[in-house]
Amino acid sequence: MFRLDHIGVVVEKLEPMVELYCRLLNYPPDKVEYHDVPSEGVRVAMLKGNTILEFLQPTDPDSGIGKFLAKRGAGFHHFCYGADAPVENKLAELKANGFAVLSDEPRQGAEGRVFFVHPKSAGGILTEFVENE
Amino acid sequence: MFRLDHIGVVVEKLEPMVELYCRLLNYPPDKVEYHDVPSEGVRVAMLKGNTILEFLQPTDPDSGIGKFLAKRGAGFHHFCYGADAPVENKLAELKANGFAVLSDEPRQGAEGRVFFVHPKSAGGILTEFVENE
Repeated sequence: MFRLDHIGVVVEKLEPMVELYCRLLNYPPDKVEYHDVPSEGVRVAMLKGNTILEFLQPTDPDSGIGKFLAKRGAGFHHFCYGADAPVENKLAELKANGFAVLSDEPRQGAEGRVFFVHPKSAGGILTEFVENE
Repeated sequence: MFRLDHIGVVVEKLEPMVELYCRLLNYPPDKVEYHDVPSEGVRVAMLKGNTILEFLQPTDPDSGIGKFLAKRGAGFHHFCYGADAPVENKLAELKANGFAVLSDEPRQGAEGRVFFVHPKSAGGILTEFVENE
């Protein structure tokens, strides 16, 4: 009925959080995927189950995630749902339905083409959509 | 590798949040499941995809969810993962590994036998485990 692609969780440092979650979930440490995303000023670690836990560590204090960490502390950041290609259609549908989107065009994220819905339009939760592969 | 059973999100009122998320996710309103859980002082609405969005509205201001809403406002509340039966084994394993659990025995939740791990042991995130069916 819907596909939650991933959940973004902001952390101060990836390694201790990954170590903790591998023990919490019996997740094999060698299956954790790490990505550097310099354009977003973050390093990412991903644990994959029926959805993905995406831990986000800022590498730049002026990045969106860096500012979030400074202001709000570590913790839950956003949900990302899958949307059928082309993701422009979902963006247009939501705009037409009165949802506040953060950009008028999708942009290239680390995992594909994405756009964001403002938390004020999604029950207080920052919400991302990523184009299904 | 792991199964995220559901995500708990605290809301002031279920109906406007459900209406919003049905539009956001193109979810059929007649498929939303509602449960009253008087023992927990909450009403619950569930939207089912690859994981479940569980919206929690307090019916008792003195319930855990009622106090959370008063103190923190609406928003993300907890993650719940599946654990193989009997769930006591997961509880014992985590305790032996130094995780802080909120009770020494599982209890009967709305969706089965559950226990909680303190946020201080799970990277700041309240974490529940439910026994797999």
